[in-house]
Amino acid sequence: MENVRVAIWGFGAMGSGIARMILGKKGIEITGVCDMWDKLNGMSIFERLGIERGDRKDVLISNDINSVIYKGAADVAIVATDSFVPAVFPKIKFVLEQGINVITTAEEMSYPKAQHPELAAELDRIAKENGVTVLGTGINPGLMMDLLAICLSGCMIDVESVICKRVNSLSPFGPAVMKEQGIGITVDEFNKGVEDGTLAGHVGFEESAGMIAEALGWNIDKFEKQMAPIVTSVDRQAPYGFAAAGNVAGVNMTAQAYVDGEKKIDLIHPQQIEPELEGTHTGDYVVIEGTPAIHVANTPEVEGGLGTIAMCVNMIPHVINSRPGLKTMIDLPVPHAIMGDFRNYIEK
Amino acid sequence: MENVRVAIWGFGAMGSGIARMILGKKGIEITGVCDMWDKLNGMSIFERLGIERGDRKDVLISNDINSVIYKGAADVAIVATDSFVPAVFPKIKFVLEQGINVITTAEEMSYPKAQHPELAAELDRIAKENGVTVLGTGINPGLMMDLLAICLSGCMIDVESVICKRVNSLSPFGPAVMKEQGIGITVDEFNKGVEDGTLAGHVGFEESAGMIAEALGWNIDKFEKQMAPIVTSVDRQAPYGFAAAGNVAGVNMTAQAYVDGEKKIDLIHPQQIEPELEGTHTGDYVVIEGTPAIHVANTPEVEGGLGTIAMCVNMIPHVINSRPGLKTMIDLPVPHAIMGDFRNYIEK
Repeated sequence: MENVRVAIWGFGAMGSGIARMILGKKGIEITGVCDMWDKLNGMSIFERLGIERGDRKDVLISNDINSVIYKGAADVAIVATDSFVPAVFPKIKFVLEQGINVITTAEEMSYPKAQHPELAAELDRIAKENGVTVLGTGINPGLMMDLLAICLSGCMIDVESVICKRVNSLSPFGPAVMKEQGIGITVDEFNKGVEDGTLAGHVGFEESAGMIAEALGWNIDKFEKQMAPIVTSVDRQAPYGFAAAGNVAGVNMTAQAYVDGEKKIDLIHPQQIEPELEGTHTGDYVVIEGTPAIHVANTPEVEGGLGTIAMCVNMIPHVINSRPGLKTMIDLPVPHAIMGDFRNYIEK
Repeated sequence: MENVRVAIWGFGAMGSGIARMILGKKGIEITGVCDMWDKLNGMSIFERLGIERGDRKDVLISNDINSVIYKGAADVAIVATDSFVPAVFPKIKFVLEQGINVITTAEEMSYPKAQHPELAAELDRIAKENGVTVLGTGINPGLMMDLLAICLSGCMIDVESVICKRVNSLSPFGPAVMKEQGIGITVDEFNKGVEDGTLAGHVGFEESAGMIAEALGWNIDKFEKQMAPIVTSVDRQAPYGFAAAGNVAGVNMTAQAYVDGEKKIDLIHPQQIEPELEGTHTGDYVVIEGTPAIHVANTPEVEGGLGTIAMCVNMIPHVINSRPGLKTMIDLPVPHAIMGDFRNYIEK
């Protein structure tokens, strides 16, 4: 049986991490990589990743998507280029139209119905027309602030409310994330950035809440989201970011979803560099009030980058085996690590 | 659209709890109940449960399975009569042959391939032949010592080992469980009971290990299981059991699964009455070593009875929607609580 064949669109931190993970696995191979950064064009992925090629066929990074994605090029393409549905939509459409399944890191694609119901319906239609599947996943949205709570609610007779809290460190991330999250800027600059939309903070609350509500059978009738600066009282130095005392070391993102006027879903997600310097310990927490209640803590947090990379790769067999269409994490079997041969997971 | 229709076989603690849960939900109804206890024959389930019937049709408990399970009688039957595959096999076979889906609390049915591969293959064949699905589930096996770890491993690049620990209290259980688990007997009686097989302890370790191993792609080449008495140093009184100081207050069950000679799965499950009397706090724990590591604690434990009841009812739509055959929790979408109308979950 042939290896599972994966194309990768976008070779930044996520795309290259996904490639590195795939190269360490059995029964799966990379057929092509597209990235628009000129510096990478024509470069071997093995050179870029600093991994011995051995007797594997070389894969050169290309800035021409037509040389990477075409009918029969791969079983699945990982699209790791964008966060928002409107931006990633034409890329996913193109891949689906070549009859290739899609897994994307785009946060809004984890539950695109939440903010883009028409584009979601269109992707579902295109996927079905081409007999393939599209899934958005990652650590969050995708697992820690939605699917984990959903899965745990399976042992509950009644649910009153769901609280998901993810306290994480931004220290492992690179300069792009430092800039996006406003690390080191003043509070005034932060407030201005929130106002003019240049500071996005965490993307995915609408999607996490939407996924939880659909699973549990709730209709959200009000959704609110807040974004506040985490002002540090000590200097904090991370590898790619610095926040002086009095400036912004991170973002405290919060959101609430209401059902019949009652707060049912509470999402709390403070992200910052070097949280330990002020006594904050990282972790993922799920509290579900109801019968019986759930009080789960995962400490320390699962590192976001590694978690998203693993979720994308580990979902490959489920996506290949799925009935065609737009799917979310609640439509497919539970995710799991894959230590064996990927080919053993593919249904005949 | 018609309600989802459920028949229940076995009206003990699990079957009656499942009925109670269903009666509190929307878009789902009980079509019939079979139990072999003469005292219940002809009794209304509403009387037995102490629930107002309201304008619902009455359901009388019958000791004749043919009056409860026949072609068209229900969409799914819950079989809550046995723990072991050989005992429950003929019952499940009978239900499947009437073209009715099955969900069973039988612990060994959560992953019947582990100890009864031939009967599992036979059930798969019968289910497919009749276009229906069979699933075994519960709190454990079914979630806390298998599916939860499997789901969390989805964000991992590599897994070195899995440790699932469930520290629970037997105090909420009735006289049958007190007897099965040897509550109050002497250590000598305990050792004799283990030797002659009259004390079973927890049923499901082989199944939990098998499910984890299949998900992760491991082949178990050695499996070991131990059963030790939890000897109390103080008198412990539970509603249906008593252990005097020096006697048995519970069972410490442990098991290990080896892959290529290395211990990969570690299952630890001490069950006892009134654990707090000697400073033991209940909880469900999952530790997965690897990249990134997982350290999850759910404290206190999810109560086993409630958890099993909820898992069985919450999986009903997934089982109805499934492709035919014998399924396990890793084949179907994630479990979740259902607060809305059950009919909304059924695919057309």
